[in-house]
Amino acid sequence: MKASRFFIGTLKEAPADAEIVSHKLMVRAGMIRRVAGGIYNYLPIGLRSIRKVESIVREEMNRAGAIELLMPAVQPAELWQESGRWEKYGPELLRFKDRKQNDFVMGPTHEEVVTDIARNQIKSYRQLPVNFYQVQTKFRDEIRPRFGVMRGREFIMKDAYSFDKNMDGLRESYRKMYDAYVRIFTRLGLEFRAVAADNGSIGGSGSHEFHVIAETGEDAIAYCPTSDFAANVEAADALPLIAQRAAPTGPMTKTSTPGKAKCESVAEFLDIPLQRTIKSIVLATENEGAEPTLWLLMLRGDHEMNEIKVNKIPGLGEFRFATEAEIVEWFGTPPGYLGPIGTKKPVKVIADTTVANMSDFVVGSNEVDFHTTGVNWGRDLPEPVVADIRNVQKGDPSPDGKGVLDICRGIEVGHVFQLGKKYSEAMNATFLDENGKPQNMEMGCYGIGITRILGAAIEQNFDDRGIIWPESIAPFEIVLCPMGYDRSDAVREHADRLYAELVAAGVDVILDDRGERPGVMFADWELIGVPHRLVIGDRGLKEGKVEYQGRRDTEATLLPAESAAATVTEKIRAALAG
Amino acid sequence: MKASRFFIGTLKEAPADAEIVSHKLMVRAGMIRRVAGGIYNYLPIGLRSIRKVESIVREEMNRAGAIELLMPAVQPAELWQESGRWEKYGPELLRFKDRKQNDFVMGPTHEEVVTDIARNQIKSYRQLPVNFYQVQTKFRDEIRPRFGVMRGREFIMKDAYSFDKNMDGLRESYRKMYDAYVRIFTRLGLEFRAVAADNGSIGGSGSHEFHVIAETGEDAIAYCPTSDFAANVEAADALPLIAQRAAPTGPMTKTSTPGKAKCESVAEFLDIPLQRTIKSIVLATENEGAEPTLWLLMLRGDHEMNEIKVNKIPGLGEFRFATEAEIVEWFGTPPGYLGPIGTKKPVKVIADTTVANMSDFVVGSNEVDFHTTGVNWGRDLPEPVVADIRNVQKGDPSPDGKGVLDICRGIEVGHVFQLGKKYSEAMNATFLDENGKPQNMEMGCYGIGITRILGAAIEQNFDDRGIIWPESIAPFEIVLCPMGYDRSDAVREHADRLYAELVAAGVDVILDDRGERPGVMFADWELIGVPHRLVIGDRGLKEGKVEYQGRRDTEATLLPAESAAATVTEKIRAALAG
Repeated sequence: MKASRFFIGTLKEAPADAEIVSHKLMVRAGMIRRVAGGIYNYLPIGLRSIRKVESIVREEMNRAGAIELLMPAVQPAELWQESGRWEKYGPELLRFKDRKQNDFVMGPTHEEVVTDIARNQIKSYRQLPVNFYQVQTKFRDEIRPRFGVMRGREFIMKDAYSFDKNMDGLRESYRKMYDAYVRIFTRLGLEFRAVAADNGSIGGSGSHEFHVIAETGEDAIAYCPTSDFAANVEAADALPLIAQRAAPTGPMTKTSTPGKAKCESVAEFLDIPLQRTIKSIVLATENEGAEPTLWLLMLRGDHEMNEIKVNKIPGLGEFRFATEAEIVEWFGTPPGYLGPIGTKKPVKVIADTTVANMSDFVVGSNEVDFHTTGVNWGRDLPEPVVADIRNVQKGDPSPDGKGVLDICRGIEVGHVFQLGKKYSEAMNATFLDENGKPQNMEMGCYGIGITRILGAAIEQNFDDRGIIWPESIAPFEIVLCPMGYDRSDAVREHADRLYAELVAAGVDVILDDRGERPGVMFADWELIGVPHRLVIGDRGLKEGKVEYQGRRDTEATLLPAESAAATVTEKIRAALAG
Repeated sequence: MKASRFFIGTLKEAPADAEIVSHKLMVRAGMIRRVAGGIYNYLPIGLRSIRKVESIVREEMNRAGAIELLMPAVQPAELWQESGRWEKYGPELLRFKDRKQNDFVMGPTHEEVVTDIARNQIKSYRQLPVNFYQVQTKFRDEIRPRFGVMRGREFIMKDAYSFDKNMDGLRESYRKMYDAYVRIFTRLGLEFRAVAADNGSIGGSGSHEFHVIAETGEDAIAYCPTSDFAANVEAADALPLIAQRAAPTGPMTKTSTPGKAKCESVAEFLDIPLQRTIKSIVLATENEGAEPTLWLLMLRGDHEMNEIKVNKIPGLGEFRFATEAEIVEWFGTPPGYLGPIGTKKPVKVIADTTVANMSDFVVGSNEVDFHTTGVNWGRDLPEPVVADIRNVQKGDPSPDGKGVLDICRGIEVGHVFQLGKKYSEAMNATFLDENGKPQNMEMGCYGIGITRILGAAIEQNFDDRGIIWPESIAPFEIVLCPMGYDRSDAVREHADRLYAELVAAGVDVILDDRGERPGVMFADWELIGVPHRLVIGDRGLKEGKVEYQGRRDTEATLLPAESAAATVTEKIRAALAG
């Protein structure tokens, strides 16, 4: 491509509504332009990167045996009513009426449509498994669209849906997609992790998120640097940090802790480690026609409660936090000095797995300004019900036993999910099995946020001059910057020759023949993030040299003009090969 | 591609709502499936053909210097209010509110969005010309969606928009697009015509439609087989069919024509050619505060009035047909026996260009059951105002003077249009010219109905067995049908070898390894319309032969198995090269 035949729309300033670096840089680099909240034009430079992502995704989906089709953006309400999501889906589902007053939605996802295809097209087990995918424009009416392509309303997704005759088949389809996703994000040149995700309430039975690692990521991920374990912090199992409970070393003692209502201040006041204190959290569950049950959750002073885990404890499926009035009624004291010993009314005590192995610990005395030290299970209070109710922390043992956890932040760009029969049952998608008996299909769904990947890649790869693209996503792999294309015959001839050589080698090259000053050229292409640059100037050419600089390099190096094209082609191929 | 890893969804029966052959065949071939009225899934086979059309369109758009970007499907109402189309566009424009009650539309076209891009991005004449295009999913809320992809609601279009600094530039951009469209439809392997279109009321100054020729086409096209002239019948200039008026040969005579109110019956009754009779059409135009003006339009008996042409005659811009009461008041007789001579009140007479050169013609006598024969201009009534007010007919001279017109039917698949400043003025899209003065940009727009092309190609190319694709659009270029892939080692080995050879040659081949009976295989691939077929069977292989059959061939021919791949590769390349 020659710049004079292309459109470059770089800006000096980022728009006021851009909060994060990828949003700012995508606008400044001329990749996107806002049309309305969360709705963007993809300008030519942005579209080139989108197409490169799409192309890698398609290649790997095809390699994994998935079959591409294309479903519509506009979907009839009937299908959503059948699945039950017409009622359940929140206002992110854009609903509207056509001119005949029939109800439609703008598809935020396509489970209903693809299940409708499957139930109409698939009759026999011989047609299974099958995995349909599409690259399609979706709409989700976000309440607060922001962060550019990271949380837009209209966006491009690859979504795939597998159909299997049984769970073994689903697991196999799921594994193929998982492997394809690993290949996709590897080829995209991104640092990423496949993260075991909590299924939430969607009711599936297996799910992984693929996160691009970036400090600015919305999600906290626990991972083990010495193994492949990775999970959302909320989903990672927290192992007990104390292998075996030690014997008591002293008597239980009520101690004055005036005004010390927090574990941190109690520890400081008593001059003991925070890890000796206990955090008391009081929950309540309703009992129809009777007073509620109160639960005392005991966590080590430095730990955080994990609501998802608590939610799964029998009896706590619909917990709420207790009110202060309830706490006073049950414990005889307001929050700050609560403990499991000597409550006014019975409470159900649940100890975190680490707390269950603690000894000589400190709890509130159920009396303002007093704590009790040297408390021990069995001796001073009954053995507790034990459960994993906390978030993992940096330094915790990895649940796979292969090291110690670290915490990083990530941006979710892909999701593989075992749906099971949720949709096939709701919409009656069946096939005849080997015995001629109708069975509901087992489904999986697999999404990749194509446009979101651009934002995530930038959040991971930028500096104060602009974007730093991996070769696989870069709008151009290399830019040729001739110094005086319009003035110097030697420069123009060499630039044209290098351009021709690179095109012939299959390199995605742009020749900046706009006649801009060097400073403007360099600033534009560094902002746009082209990973390789060759500068062709009279001074260098006198010695038969051109200047090469990688986007992350701090200095240029001289290359013989004759072999420069071959050299950079080799660099680019090596980078693309990973 | 191997059929066992692909999805084939052929049907024996077409759906009840399919009225035309392309709709029936696309459903039966498993290319599309209805989701709602005018909204379709593109199944894998259909999507393959769509992608091939898109790919050729992209190549030729890029070659013509257009730059691809991607605009959103959902567009804010503000832009449409600025252009004025929020009010003017009919209910085909799907309007809806988002969750915050802001107004949006589903884009049926993108003039507003692209003009917004241009006014923000283009500051100087140095940035012009530029031509932005996209391949994008559009929505038009048709009152009566039908004919499958031919008149759908959600469909894929390529739309391009050029911006120029002046009319010379626009004409040059337009010419480039015209040429690109000729290349596109030529490469697609379709019989087509570029047709001069009437601009209607959109206010542009130049426009061509590209029609795929098919008997089932909605539009009548006048074309000259011995030149490149082609125009919509409504838009083609009708030349006078009589070069010079002949002298009168007899007196004007009032003749009894009892009950003969139509030209045909008058000609039959008087035993004269229909071409001697005159058809009288009475129009009216309003005069504020006064009685209307009545106009008598005179056409030869075998000609049809063209309302678009009449509309352009000074004074007739807002004509209506006269009422019977008005006709009786002005002519003294009800319709059927009207003429220009002896009206009760003055009427304005306009003669068609052919009528103006007629002599000895027949008109009504303004008296029931009477016509007047032997009427001549100048002698019996004043010389008329002359205008082209009729549709051309088969056999008329071509307006370019290079032959005789024929009439065919076409399906519009592309449109190039000079918009001028309509949008750039409404939305204030300006650039600074060479003198630093702001000027409105001259715009052109250029559309191709990607999905519609599939339907049009089928309307042009089918038989009773199914679709007959041009190689360029075929979902696969060739199918390999092995007889007993699962039973015969020789068949399987030869089929696999042919498959590998064709893949290596870059041919888009499908190997039917489903193990279906020959009849099922052949019927499927003939219905789907794959243009080339090789049958590999034990009997032929014994003689070192495989059976080749082109989709239009009535019989198979034997090819040496060793060279069959090379032979069909050559055939396919030749076809693709046009």
